[in-house]
Amino acid sequence: MKKKNKKINAAILIIGNEILSGRTSDKNIAFISNWLNSKCGISVGEARIIQDKEKIIIENILILSKKFNYVFTTGGIGPTHDDITARSISKAFKVKYEYHKEAYEILEKYYGKVKFNDGRKKMAKMPRGARLIYNPSSAAPGFITKNVLSLPGVPSILNSMIENCKRYLIKGLKVHSKTINLYTVESNISKELGLIQKKYNKFVDIGSYPFFRLGKIGVALVTRSTSLSKLKKVNKDLLKLVKLKKIEILKI
Amino acid sequence: MKKKNKKINAAILIIGNEILSGRTSDKNIAFISNWLNSKCGISVGEARIIQDKEKIIIENILILSKKFNYVFTTGGIGPTHDDITARSISKAFKVKYEYHKEAYEILEKYYGKVKFNDGRKKMAKMPRGARLIYNPSSAAPGFITKNVLSLPGVPSILNSMIENCKRYLIKGLKVHSKTINLYTVESNISKELGLIQKKYNKFVDIGSYPFFRLGKIGVALVTRSTSLSKLKKVNKDLLKLVKLKKIEILKI
Repeated sequence: MKKKNKKINAAILIIGNEILSGRTSDKNIAFISNWLNSKCGISVGEARIIQDKEKIIIENILILSKKFNYVFTTGGIGPTHDDITARSISKAFKVKYEYHKEAYEILEKYYGKVKFNDGRKKMAKMPRGARLIYNPSSAAPGFITKNVLSLPGVPSILNSMIENCKRYLIKGLKVHSKTINLYTVESNISKELGLIQKKYNKFVDIGSYPFFRLGKIGVALVTRSTSLSKLKKVNKDLLKLVKLKKIEILKI
Repeated sequence: MKKKNKKINAAILIIGNEILSGRTSDKNIAFISNWLNSKCGISVGEARIIQDKEKIIIENILILSKKFNYVFTTGGIGPTHDDITARSISKAFKVKYEYHKEAYEILEKYYGKVKFNDGRKKMAKMPRGARLIYNPSSAAPGFITKNVLSLPGVPSILNSMIENCKRYLIKGLKVHSKTINLYTVESNISKELGLIQKKYNKFVDIGSYPFFRLGKIGVALVTRSTSLSKLKKVNKDLLKLVKLKKIEILKI
């Protein structure tokens, strides 16, 4: 993993009707995002959940791969008719959709020649020039095409593969983050919070998120910055405000 | 709620850095989608999670409100500086961002004149012409502007408000759905499944989703259609396939 001294971003593209229909709750966005943030200094700028229709996949791949340094797709790389991610990415980038030699060998070895049927062979078909993302749980590899990394939709398999994405990524500046949990309501501090955000506008993002815990209402103040010293400064200001307003801090 | 004999669709726009950063797992997409499907016959065609930046919100509101019958936004309607949904929607539709008389009265009554500070007043500011979506849990109303319905990000509050969206929606054709859970692997049935999907192409969507349960691998076959009779036919074909392949059905 090379290191670069700048901000690197990514988009996540969840491909699958089962998430859109509400049948399945997505777990991959939070997982990928946390991993990119903490391990690679890459922040996720946008996530989309789309239907598994070729035209829609192509459109989104083209838009997001231009807009972001990396795109992570999940879903649609299995053996069934609704698994059309690899074919759609080939069409998006106008490259051939064909058997990937190494992927074919991995899968043939995994299943054995007799059980290596057409459905399973399909999982070795990829955009020409794709490089593999190895899969330690169920053999079928993911792949990277240009700046698009394609992973499976099943969270446990995806999780087991994520470290194998690292070799293809350029490391960005780490975004540091600090959270202060307060027993107060947002509107009690919203004015002062706005002023503090203005003061540090370009350097620190302050997020304010209400929560309910053990029957009490609270606010989580989350500050994020690539500069650790600026982060410390803004948190000093926040703690001053907390003291001034006599607000109880929740320690967790 | 008026009823119309056609397909109605919606997009969901989750506004909030806390979801993108992976700090918080989104719960609203599955909830809204399930509710729209089961109660309103409306299917969700796309969901996006975006940063709370004005330019980005405006861009997405304009794209999605043109592409879909309805857009549901969540997040960014509270009292703090990072709550900019209402202002951004005003700018997107080029209408004034101003106090909504009824919302102002509701909030003033809820907090009492003395405690009705600037932060709280902000929650009464909306795009001119907006109509309210009442909030039975914490008073601050959501609102609808053209075809865009804006709800809060906190799931428990959003859930308590969802029924109050109904009056603004046209009911679409209900999408019926049936699931068969099989103890098999996808590649065992992928070829035949593809043929069955081809046969019913325009009328029924067949989704195939691998699962792991109690240490056993399985596949959930989910069929969805607005036609109940077509759905029955496709499921007959699927059960024939299951019998032919001697696959065990998991009853849950």
